[in-house]
Amino acid sequence: QWVADALARLLPEPGQTPTALPAAMRHAVDGGKRLRPFLVIQAAASCGLAPHVVLPTACGFEMMHCATLVHDDLPCIDDADLRHGRTALHLAFDEATALLAADALIIQSFECLARQAERPETPPDRVLQCVRELAECAGPRGLIVGEALDIEAEHRPYTEADLEFIHINKTAKLIVCATRAGAILAGADAATLARFTEYAEALGLLFQITDDLLDATGTEAELGKPVGADAAAGKATYPGLLGVEAARRRAAQVAARALAAARDLPDVDPWLSLAEFVVARRH
Amino acid sequence: QWVADALARLLPEPGQTPTALPAAMRHAVDGGKRLRPFLVIQAAASCGLAPHVVLPTACGFEMMHCATLVHDDLPCIDDADLRHGRTALHLAFDEATALLAADALIIQSFECLARQAERPETPPDRVLQCVRELAECAGPRGLIVGEALDIEAEHRPYTEADLEFIHINKTAKLIVCATRAGAILAGADAATLARFTEYAEALGLLFQITDDLLDATGTEAELGKPVGADAAAGKATYPGLLGVEAARRRAAQVAARALAAARDLPDVDPWLSLAEFVVARRH
Repeated sequence: QWVADALARLLPEPGQTPTALPAAMRHAVDGGKRLRPFLVIQAAASCGLAPHVVLPTACGFEMMHCATLVHDDLPCIDDADLRHGRTALHLAFDEATALLAADALIIQSFECLARQAERPETPPDRVLQCVRELAECAGPRGLIVGEALDIEAEHRPYTEADLEFIHINKTAKLIVCATRAGAILAGADAATLARFTEYAEALGLLFQITDDLLDATGTEAELGKPVGADAAAGKATYPGLLGVEAARRRAAQVAARALAAARDLPDVDPWLSLAEFVVARRH
Repeated sequence: QWVADALARLLPEPGQTPTALPAAMRHAVDGGKRLRPFLVIQAAASCGLAPHVVLPTACGFEMMHCATLVHDDLPCIDDADLRHGRTALHLAFDEATALLAADALIIQSFECLARQAERPETPPDRVLQCVRELAECAGPRGLIVGEALDIEAEHRPYTEADLEFIHINKTAKLIVCATRAGAILAGADAATLARFTEYAEALGLLFQITDDLLDATGTEAELGKPVGADAAAGKATYPGLLGVEAARRRAAQVAARALAAARDLPDVDPWLSLAEFVVARRH
C-alpha cells in the first residue's frame, strides 16, 4: 500500500497535462505484484535503512517494469488483450497513447531514482550508482535485449542455454538490479552486494520458470491474463522445452540455489520467505 | 565528427548481442544534425570545460532525441517512411525492432549521462542534476506530453498558445536541457544557468518554427524527408495557423529574442552564430 500511495503521488495527475497520458500511466502501473519495489525496500531494510526512505527508487523500478509490459503487449510484439486482469493499455486507450505512456514511465523511472538524492540518508554517489545500474540492466545489454531475443526465438529451435540467456536478461537482471539498489542506497559493502546479486539471480530465474509453468498449467482467473498464451505464440519457455515435470524439477533446483544464497544474507528470514512464496505462487 | 565517433563507441556493437538491436540503434542515430550534442559541448566550453570531457552527456542527448523520432515515425503515430534522408527504422527493420531499439536508446541515454561521473572534472552531484533535468524535460511533463498533444491536436482547431505549448514541450525543453547540462557540468552559477535557459528557450522555439516553415516551403532533397507532410497530416504548425508570411515574421521576432539573450551569455559569438544559422537553415 505504501508503494501504491507513493506511485499515486509521483505520477502526473489527470488534468495536470491536457492529454490522456496521466490516466494511461496510472492504468499501466495498476494491479502489479510490486515485486521489484518490495526487493528495493527489503534489501534497504536488511541493510539498516528505513523502508519509506527508498520509496522513490522502489517506485522507479515498478514504473520501468510496467512500461516494458505495455510495450510487450502492443500489437507489433505480443498483441495481448489482457494484463493484470485488466484490458491491455493499447485497448483501454489507443496504440499511440500506450506507446507514449510507456515511454513516459521509462523516463520518469529515472526521475524517481534521481530524486532519491533529496533524502539526506542516500547521498548522490549511491543514487548515481543506482541510476547507472538501472540503465545498464534495462537497456540494450539487459532487459531490452531479452525482449528482442524472446521475439526472435518464437517458432525457432532453442536450447536450454538460449532460454536461460533470454530469461536472465528479460527478467532476472531487473530483479537483481532492484535488490542491489536497495542495498547500495543503504551503503552495503561489495561482499554483501555480491551475495544479494547471487540470491536475486536465482530468484529472478525462479520467478520466470514459475511464470512459464503458470502459463502452461494455471487458470485465467488466477493469472489475470489468458493461459496457454506462450505456447500459442510459440514462445521459448521451460515447460515448452523440457515438459511440465522437468520444468518443475528445474524450478526446484533453482529454488534450492535461492534458499542457499538467502542463508548468507544480512537478514535471512524475509529472503527465505520470498523464495518460498515464489515457488508456491499461483498468480 | 567527435560526436559521431563517441556515439559509435558508446552504442552496442553489432554481434555483441545476438539480435538486430545494435544495428537498429546505429541506424536510428545516423544522419542527424547533432544540434543537442553541439549545445552540450558549446555550453560546457563557454563555461570553461573542454569539449571532449562532456562527450558522454552530449551523446546521451542525441540518443534521447533520435529515440523519440523513431517512436514518432511508427505507424501508430506519424507512419513516416523517411527520416534524415534514409528509410525510417520500422521499414528498414520491422516495427517490433524499431520500438525496442528506441526504448534501448532512451535507456542508454541515461547510462551515458550517469557515466559522465567517471570524468574527474564532472562530480556526481552535477551529473545527477543533469540526469534529473533530462528525465523531467523528456518525460510526461516535457517532450512526451508535447508528442501526445501534437497527436491530439491533429485535425482540430488550435490557438497560437496551444501551438507554442506543444512546441515548447516537444522541441524547446530538450534543447534547453542540453544547453543547461553543458553549463551545469562546467559548474555554472544560477544566474548564468538562467541566461542559458532564456537563450535556449528562444532558440528551441525558433528551431521548431523554421522546421514548420521548411516543411511548408522546402524541398525533399533539402530536408531528407517528404515536404508538406505536416499539412497532409493536419498537424498544428505556425504556417498552418498564421500562413507562411506571418510565420516568417514570428520566426524573426523569436530570432531577435534569441540574439538579445545571446549577448548576455559568457561567450557571445558562437551563440549568435548558432541563432543566425537556425534562421538561415535549409534542412
